[in-house]
Amino acid sequence: MTTKEILSKAVNTKYALASLSSEEKNRALGLMADEIEKSSGAILAANLKDVEAARGNISDVMIDRLALSESRIADMAAGVRNVIALPDPVGRTLSKKTTADGLLLYKVSVPLGVVAIIYESRPNVTSDAAALCLKSGNVCILRGGKEAYNSSKAIVNAMREGLLKGGFPQDFVNIIDDITRQSASELMAARGQVDLLIPRGGAGLIRACVENALVPCIETGTGICSVYVDKSADIQKALNIVENAKTQRPSVCNAQETLLVHKDIADEFLPALKKRLCDDRAAAGKVPVELRVDEAAGRIIDGTPATEQDFDTEFLDYILAIKVVNDVKEAAEHIGKHSTHHSEAIVTEDKEAADYFTGHVDSAAVYVNASTRFTDGGMFGLGCEMGISTQKLHARGPMGLEELNSYKYVVIGNGQVR
Amino acid sequence: MTTKEILSKAVNTKYALASLSSEEKNRALGLMADEIEKSSGAILAANLKDVEAARGNISDVMIDRLALSESRIADMAAGVRNVIALPDPVGRTLSKKTTADGLLLYKVSVPLGVVAIIYESRPNVTSDAAALCLKSGNVCILRGGKEAYNSSKAIVNAMREGLLKGGFPQDFVNIIDDITRQSASELMAARGQVDLLIPRGGAGLIRACVENALVPCIETGTGICSVYVDKSADIQKALNIVENAKTQRPSVCNAQETLLVHKDIADEFLPALKKRLCDDRAAAGKVPVELRVDEAAGRIIDGTPATEQDFDTEFLDYILAIKVVNDVKEAAEHIGKHSTHHSEAIVTEDKEAADYFTGHVDSAAVYVNASTRFTDGGMFGLGCEMGISTQKLHARGPMGLEELNSYKYVVIGNGQVR
Repeated sequence: MTTKEILSKAVNTKYALASLSSEEKNRALGLMADEIEKSSGAILAANLKDVEAARGNISDVMIDRLALSESRIADMAAGVRNVIALPDPVGRTLSKKTTADGLLLYKVSVPLGVVAIIYESRPNVTSDAAALCLKSGNVCILRGGKEAYNSSKAIVNAMREGLLKGGFPQDFVNIIDDITRQSASELMAARGQVDLLIPRGGAGLIRACVENALVPCIETGTGICSVYVDKSADIQKALNIVENAKTQRPSVCNAQETLLVHKDIADEFLPALKKRLCDDRAAAGKVPVELRVDEAAGRIIDGTPATEQDFDTEFLDYILAIKVVNDVKEAAEHIGKHSTHHSEAIVTEDKEAADYFTGHVDSAAVYVNASTRFTDGGMFGLGCEMGISTQKLHARGPMGLEELNSYKYVVIGNGQVR
Repeated sequence: MTTKEILSKAVNTKYALASLSSEEKNRALGLMADEIEKSSGAILAANLKDVEAARGNISDVMIDRLALSESRIADMAAGVRNVIALPDPVGRTLSKKTTADGLLLYKVSVPLGVVAIIYESRPNVTSDAAALCLKSGNVCILRGGKEAYNSSKAIVNAMREGLLKGGFPQDFVNIIDDITRQSASELMAARGQVDLLIPRGGAGLIRACVENALVPCIETGTGICSVYVDKSADIQKALNIVENAKTQRPSVCNAQETLLVHKDIADEFLPALKKRLCDDRAAAGKVPVELRVDEAAGRIIDGTPATEQDFDTEFLDYILAIKVVNDVKEAAEHIGKHSTHHSEAIVTEDKEAADYFTGHVDSAAVYVNASTRFTDGGMFGLGCEMGISTQKLHARGPMGLEELNSYKYVVIGNGQVR
């Protein structure tokens, strides 16, 4: 089917989805999950095609993200079932008042309508995104990466089979068959049809959406996250937090890329950090972290000399850029210039420094004495996550079901005129 | 000053403004209002230049919008003072919880940062927009129409004088001196500097912003608003509502452009409406409304035959497009295809029809038995208005101070790692 045909079908079915009750949506989700499990043979066969075509073209890490197994398929189905338990975001009365003219003014949450998601190779995004859109009353249009097309198509087929069995329109969940750039451009240009476009992937994809989209778009995921170790920091907390933020899963957007250290604590902290991130890890057979040090840090510990570019880079790797600063003010200023406004942390025992940092750092999540790795829909108690917004309009930080809704005013009168 | 210089100054001052207390912001607003009044001579002289340059180039209606007087200047100052009484939207705790990991998670409202407003000829937008931005903690960059440049510049000079007298940075309020298209393009392209761009003006300006802006932008104001008169309507209510929505102020975005009438009530309602909108108005020396009737309506009353284009036109004039429909479902479908999702009304005594309409019409404000003219920040009790959003992302309908804020998560831990 062409992208234009899919867009038109999606628009035509959005009112049907918007008016479903919570019970009906939950029934649909249950059937979608069942069919994913029942179709595991077909999904694995399709996935094998993708993996074989990709071998040699993409890195082993990417192959690992792409490859499915019975247990990963069970996880996908479980992910869809988890959404059943989440509260329905649609139809909440956000506020209610009587105006001076005697009008009853209700502000009510409503679905956005049609949500398009352009994503890269992980096939599980397909079922996650479809489930979150359905629960939030939105028709979804999924445009996955070409490497995972066969897998995603098989997963969507299963979910559509579930919808069919439940007597629901299959067009609640749509996948784009055209995996050339053309279809992405068509989605970006579909004014009046796509109510929200969410790019999930690398910085290039997100920039392309922001620069080219004529439809509303939410920037997600790029994270140059910093941890600032204040002069009053508890050294043990600081070591634990930096180790965790940098090494627990370096490939994700909420991992740390930059370390800022107060000059008064640098002599004590940096050697201890080097021991923890480099020597101890090497001794334990783990990948040691490459430290890229500014001039002041380089006078205290060995490391690769940092370039200015290092402080503007999302390494997504065992690399940490380190800079010594004069105070919390300079730390906040550095973050203001170099951060992607995702997640930043201060380690301090000084309330004044903490307050300055949370007040002056303009990022989606600002931490005091905790790892940046907590910026996540699950960790924040949203129960799910459609991506992490790094923009300020509409949604910021982890986006859950409520962030996939808009609102409208319903105004009840008895003949009022102005 | 060049637009680039203004952008850079605005960004540099945004943290200073974001961290002001409510008392300080209110003091600044009071001083800005005082200086507007004290500068009335300079403002009137500047305005006279604008009016003389514009005469002959723009319509008398536009000249009237452009021209200032002592009393209009007093109104501007009063408008700024009104903002003092409004609640400060910054720093509200929107939610607060303890996560499973023992993190204290606060969701706190914060300013957007730098808000740019591109608007057309009304000089009072200058003081309104500056006051709302300041109270909501945002540095504003005003880019008014070239016809009103001297007036707007004089108003901004007065407000900056007020800031100076209070010891505040003058760069809280900025006006763009370059009134060529170049400056508008620079604002639209200022990624990382402009946090929100609000176009206020005609459909062409709004389309240009949506299509060209690389910065986040909110569509405002275009209104093709419909009133649907159901078969169960109270005829008197319907006549009052249509007369008000169409004629009370036809040049504004919440005025009615389209009338949909149920076929079972059309024979009774349309002749009564024609009498009210045409004959009675003519007899009273008022402009009669031109009725553009579809085929079915044309069999009941005389009128200009409506073209399909008439149902997609924001007349902003004493013109009403009329269509007879089979039922509320067809009315909602017509609105879905032709509306700009601003404001729509149903007139009905039937709860089921009202519920169908409010459930299926996807506009910012959906009315039962009231005029669409109520869609307004003041009428909705927001105390002010920065424009009426016709998009679904971030803000919908009248935008007040809260809609000029974003939020961030402040997360307090005691050493937590994942």
